[in-house]
Amino acid sequence: MANFDKPNAAIKLVFRGTFIHSTQKSALDILEDALLGVDTAGKIAFIGNSQELEKLSQTFGFSPSDVTQLTQHEFFMPGLVDTHIHASQYSYAGTALDMPLLQWLTTYTFPVESHFKDLEFAHRVYAQVVKRTLRNGTTTACYFATIHTDASLLLGQIANDFGQRALVGKVCMDSKNSLNYCETTPESQNETRRFIKELLDRKYPLVKPVVTPRFVLSCTKDLLGELGTIAKKTNLHIQSHISENVEEVKLVKQHFPDCKNYADIYHKYNLLTDKTVMAHGCYLSDEELSLFRETGASLSHCPNSNISLCSGVLNVRNVLKHKVKLGLGTDVAGGYSASMLDAMRRALDVSKFLTIQNPEHSTLTFEEVFRLATLGGSEALSLDDQTGNFEVGKDFDALRVNLTVPGGPIDLIQKSEPKIQLEKFMNLGDDRNIVEVFVAGRKVVPFTEPTAYNCTE
Amino acid sequence: MANFDKPNAAIKLVFRGTFIHSTQKSALDILEDALLGVDTAGKIAFIGNSQELEKLSQTFGFSPSDVTQLTQHEFFMPGLVDTHIHASQYSYAGTALDMPLLQWLTTYTFPVESHFKDLEFAHRVYAQVVKRTLRNGTTTACYFATIHTDASLLLGQIANDFGQRALVGKVCMDSKNSLNYCETTPESQNETRRFIKELLDRKYPLVKPVVTPRFVLSCTKDLLGELGTIAKKTNLHIQSHISENVEEVKLVKQHFPDCKNYADIYHKYNLLTDKTVMAHGCYLSDEELSLFRETGASLSHCPNSNISLCSGVLNVRNVLKHKVKLGLGTDVAGGYSASMLDAMRRALDVSKFLTIQNPEHSTLTFEEVFRLATLGGSEALSLDDQTGNFEVGKDFDALRVNLTVPGGPIDLIQKSEPKIQLEKFMNLGDDRNIVEVFVAGRKVVPFTEPTAYNCTE
Ligand SMILES: [Zn+2]
Ligand SMILES: [Zn+2]
Repeated sequence: MANFDKPNAAIKLVFRGTFIHSTQKSALDILEDALLGVDTAGKIAFIGNSQELEKLSQTFGFSPSDVTQLTQHEFFMPGLVDTHIHASQYSYAGTALDMPLLQWLTTYTFPVESHFKDLEFAHRVYAQVVKRTLRNGTTTACYFATIHTDASLLLGQIANDFGQRALVGKVCMDSKNSLNYCETTPESQNETRRFIKELLDRKYPLVKPVVTPRFVLSCTKDLLGELGTIAKKTNLHIQSHISENVEEVKLVKQHFPDCKNYADIYHKYNLLTDKTVMAHGCYLSDEELSLFRETGASLSHCPNSNISLCSGVLNVRNVLKHKVKLGLGTDVAGGYSASMLDAMRRALDVSKFLTIQNPEHSTLTFEEVFRLATLGGSEALSLDDQTGNFEVGKDFDALRVNLTVPGGPIDLIQKSEPKIQLEKFMNLGDDRNIVEVFVAGRKVVPFTEPTAYNCTE
Repeated sequence: MANFDKPNAAIKLVFRGTFIHSTQKSALDILEDALLGVDTAGKIAFIGNSQELEKLSQTFGFSPSDVTQLTQHEFFMPGLVDTHIHASQYSYAGTALDMPLLQWLTTYTFPVESHFKDLEFAHRVYAQVVKRTLRNGTTTACYFATIHTDASLLLGQIANDFGQRALVGKVCMDSKNSLNYCETTPESQNETRRFIKELLDRKYPLVKPVVTPRFVLSCTKDLLGELGTIAKKTNLHIQSHISENVEEVKLVKQHFPDCKNYADIYHKYNLLTDKTVMAHGCYLSDEELSLFRETGASLSHCPNSNISLCSGVLNVRNVLKHKVKLGLGTDVAGGYSASMLDAMRRALDVSKFLTIQNPEHSTLTFEEVFRLATLGGSEALSLDDQTGNFEVGKDFDALRVNLTVPGGPIDLIQKSEPKIQLEKFMNLGDDRNIVEVFVAGRKVVPFTEPTAYNCTE
């Protein structure tokens, strides 16, 4: 029987075909010849079997002739959730991957990020990254911007204009570095307050601020304490980095001799909450994972970045065993690809490497990785009440995938069942196969180019 | 000064712009504002600086107005060499990656390969794989087909028709398996002889047969011996698999208690020659690598396959230290991607994993991986007298790469130097960026679809 709430808004879209998503019970729930309706508020009004068409059309007041039929090589899947991406690093994505984290930050990252005081440059890069990620199916992105408040607000505006669901963080860092890409402690606090207030005042329906200490090595204790207080007062999301690389972990121990471990530092400053997402966590101990579990904080697994910067390997199976919420992230530009398809592939690779090292390791399946990139990501960002799968009442964030687009990257020899189609798409597909993207019921891909963003050289 | 031989054929193509290739001396040799001429035999007639235009046009008798100018976001690089790909497994590429090698062979591979007695099916799959790899820049492919002689000849014909340089192997296997996908020993010998004779008789300029025992576990000693003899008599290439997976290596030791090690088995049957390429080699000892060095046999590193089937990790640095010739392979469908761009990325990943495990490990650079995919591959296949880089006298096998194709996968914020362009292409590019492909001076991509191969469902 169809799932639906009592209709309380008119239906604006109805699709018939294959829907693939994850649920609490199952990593892969495949609904064939299903009907899904989206109301004018962008929410999923019903999902049921197509045999119920007549009843549903009467209950929800739509005409069977308004139903959009998918082809046999198409399916809908939930929008992809990128739980960790540095919008400001997109300009050099795919380059500069020849040194470890701390040197990489000062050599490549800080010089580029300091350019974002130039709003025209910021505009160009941020429009590119929002469009690029949307085309690749990222319906929700959790962004690091830079220390610059106005440029960070601009990122929020661009995400809103293109219709992407986003958490946007103005980066906070008040520890001196050789490049002078940093703030004073009061600057960082005041600008964070201004950023939060101005972004909230704009009342973007899908774009919200996130409190963003870069990581403990770039923040003073005073700043960490103040950011914890701000997040508590505003009940906002928090994002940062943790336990990414051996050298960093060693330095953190030296800088914070009083704290039991890395996670405990964030915890002490009220920065581990059930709205916190921490990137990486490669070297977290079981004790630290338990603290994540207790506080409700989540991890963003960024396999491309972990490999590309030779940072480390996250044992996702162990994280899941500790029942810590987990999503995937691209971590552009430590990760070279802005596509969550790449993040899924690299997550499988990392898990398979762990199996090569130890045959007893229980390798992740592609179904599990699919869940991490969709429902898992929404849970990691505490947005699973709004997105992550096709539950009635959630926003319709979805990709219409077509395996046989002309000029596309996939060859099919014969008609394939949906599970095979999904696996082929995950391994071999790209943006050409993502023929439509919806966020909260609005079709955001293909997009019409707002003239203002059409910055070519 | 320009490099050129005395002109002995008319010039049919002259390009001006950036050329990037590897040489014996340098993994990355970048020639900016260069001029390259191709003669009517498809060979590189000259390469020089564009200031020499007048002199070159006089010497070689072409008009400066016939020169094709690349844009600032374009460059030429040598065609990619896939040293190991199973054309017959392409139909299920991107699926069926959930079990280790030996079970994978009997569960997925042998049932599919046995379908290739059906020439119509073979035609469909082989046309797809040749077109797909050409579009992705594979100008030279070393193919495994199946045990079926006529289907294997068809693969040769299709490669020839589309203009791909190829070594094509009819697979030999006479050990019984539960699926009865095998031959008798005399069948395998006689069909191999027939395959070689018929393929050579067709006098395809770029397509040659390769003697192809599947691997020692699927061949009797009699067959191995006979294949070694055939290869010796005909002076043909040889390809097989070696030391891919722990269980396989263990079984091989049990089956060949007299041989000192895995490599020694092939050596004993005259199957390690300077025209042999062996896939994988993850578990080869230093002693075995030395035997490769002495015999001139080469390795095909197939990182996607090694990861995807959880087979093992090849330490490329150690192979290079032993001065064993080495190329990259996709190993479709153990590797899910038919693109050599993927093989390059995965080769870097594997090397970076080795660095994560042991920080003393000297990580491969992207420049070195570029060389492996081009010049290294041509050396591994003993075809470096004909292809692999832009040396005068070699065939013009080349990709015209454009970073800024409309709708392409790469965003450029500003004008970038050629090295950055190459790195972006290697990490983020795809077939959309490969706007033209040349093999022996013939433009093979974009291709016009021969009607016979236009098999849609
Ligand atoms: Zn990050
Ligand atoms: Zn193979």
